Amino acid sequence: MITRDDAVAAAARVAGYIRRTPVVEAEPGALWLKLEFLQHSGSFKARGMFNRILAGDVPAAGVIAASGGNAGGAVAYAAQTLGLPAEVFVPVTTPPVKIEALHRRGATVVQHGNEYAEAYEAATKRAADNGALFCHAYDQIDVCAGQGTLGLELLEQVPDVDTVLIAVGGGGLMAGVAAALEGSARVVAVEPETCPTLHSALAAGAPADVEVSGVAADSLGARRVGTIAYEVAVRTGVHSLLVSDDDIVAARRALWDRYRVLVEHGTAAAYAALLTRAYTPATGERVALVLCGANTDPTRL
Amino acid sequence: MITRDDAVAAAARVAGYIRRTPVVEAEPGALWLKLEFLQHSGSFKARGMFNRILAGDVPAAGVIAASGGNAGGAVAYAAQTLGLPAEVFVPVTTPPVKIEALHRRGATVVQHGNEYAEAYEAATKRAADNGALFCHAYDQIDVCAGQGTLGLELLEQVPDVDTVLIAVGGGGLMAGVAAALEGSARVVAVEPETCPTLHSALAAGAPADVEVSGVAADSLGARRVGTIAYEVAVRTGVHSLLVSDDDIVAARRALWDRYRVLVEHGTAAAYAALLTRAYTPATGERVALVLCGANTDPTRL
Repeated sequence: MITRDDAVAAAARVAGYIRRTPVVEAEPGALWLKLEFLQHSGSFKARGMFNRILAGDVPAAGVIAASGGNAGGAVAYAAQTLGLPAEVFVPVTTPPVKIEALHRRGATVVQHGNEYAEAYEAATKRAADNGALFCHAYDQIDVCAGQGTLGLELLEQVPDVDTVLIAVGGGGLMAGVAAALEGSARVVAVEPETCPTLHSALAAGAPADVEVSGVAADSLGARRVGTIAYEVAVRTGVHSLLVSDDDIVAARRALWDRYRVLVEHGTAAAYAALLTRAYTPATGERVALVLCGANTDPTRL
Repeated sequence: MITRDDAVAAAARVAGYIRRTPVVEAEPGALWLKLEFLQHSGSFKARGMFNRILAGDVPAAGVIAASGGNAGGAVAYAAQTLGLPAEVFVPVTTPPVKIEALHRRGATVVQHGNEYAEAYEAATKRAADNGALFCHAYDQIDVCAGQGTLGLELLEQVPDVDTVLIAVGGGGLMAGVAAALEGSARVVAVEPETCPTLHSALAAGAPADVEVSGVAADSLGARRVGTIAYEVAVRTGVHSLLVSDDDIVAARRALWDRYRVLVEHGTAAAYAALLTRAYTPATGERVALVLCGANTDPTRL
């Protein structure tokens, strides 16, 4: 079970390695944007990866992860910063541009299998063989606790925030923030209709694999919500709202038009919940929107 | 003469109308980014326009400006917010997309002449005829004082800042910030080699028309630095560094790659001074970079 104390411990550990990302009051007294895309490696994932790595002793074999996306980029960045070897497993279908980005951050890239699940399996096997520290993209307490440091920061920046909107894929960010804010603010999860991992799990009463597709699958395309995330959602009463791919595309465009921030589709999902009134704040409600990543191609806005 | 007191008075006037834009500590203890592109209308210009309009009584004829760029967008936004009529004069060569943007903000757009100078002349004549409040893009004390509120904010956010890098076109932002920070921090101006208004004026001993062109001309393409800006630069010791268009393009790209912020070329000029070492901070020097606008096309990064 993850609690606020885990996030507090993580905050002490990762201080000096992660950026304190600012907030802007977008609508006076009503809406704040947490500009987490300014984080190292372009997403919140650096928080969790630093905490995972710094929470214990790292074997000589270094760290291992499976991800061609934000988690992979973050673990490579963290390992490079800390002077540790990193192996990142990705499917053979991973675009060359993502592999080059991992190489630039000093990671060894292993291409294995046609699907993420195969790369993941190979990564865990490799870690079992060589003793390297396996860094899960979302379903480890230390990873979730690292993401929770965002919630603690936000509470300092907007002390009387009522509600925090967060996009959910595997749920690591939601889990950490919901734990960090338990008793202080409500967390609302937003998912694409095409990647409804938490929504399905809450409906079914347990995490289970779902089909994932759509514009946000590159960042929110985990097939199953984490067990940690599921447990926190149930414990703290996090509901999941669904938004369509069209609404996500429109929300990404609107964030640029209104605020001149350019985020990835998964991040824009959270804003889509406001634009479509899937979530309608009450009068006087103070809402924070977590803009959690911008690893996207601006030329395809 | 513009002083810190003018900026302090402006800050009281525009509070509630402008956004307090956040800063992010990009390089620990060394570099802060002032995220002013988050400002209403996508650039710092809203500060000056609100202060100009709120500093006195506005005639029934409303406000008039000459600009198809950031100043025009800001005056239209400010007038719309305050419920005042606005006329914006632009050359007939202005792209339809900019005219549509002014229309969306409720402005009456008057297309006149082939060059900015002709639109400007028509705007001042029109204001003299109908008594509307003329809002200069940069060379009025109230406009510069409004921009100076950015400097006061920055000093609260980074109290021990040593140096502030600011891109200069007409010089209104530099003038306001240099006045606001006089005695507290040094301001360094950065200009494209292709738009060297302040650099030329300082060399010649007086403002004079220069040829302007290049990638940043849409935001920094004033032909002559303002008399207010020139006076402040001389009084407070602001120097102007020049950067090439290629360096500006590379700096704009680097701001995206490193920090996931996407700004206009004129804004990127200030960062180019750091990347090219046109400006080299001393050891321990605390530098703030003003990212003053993002009215740009992301698809052309």
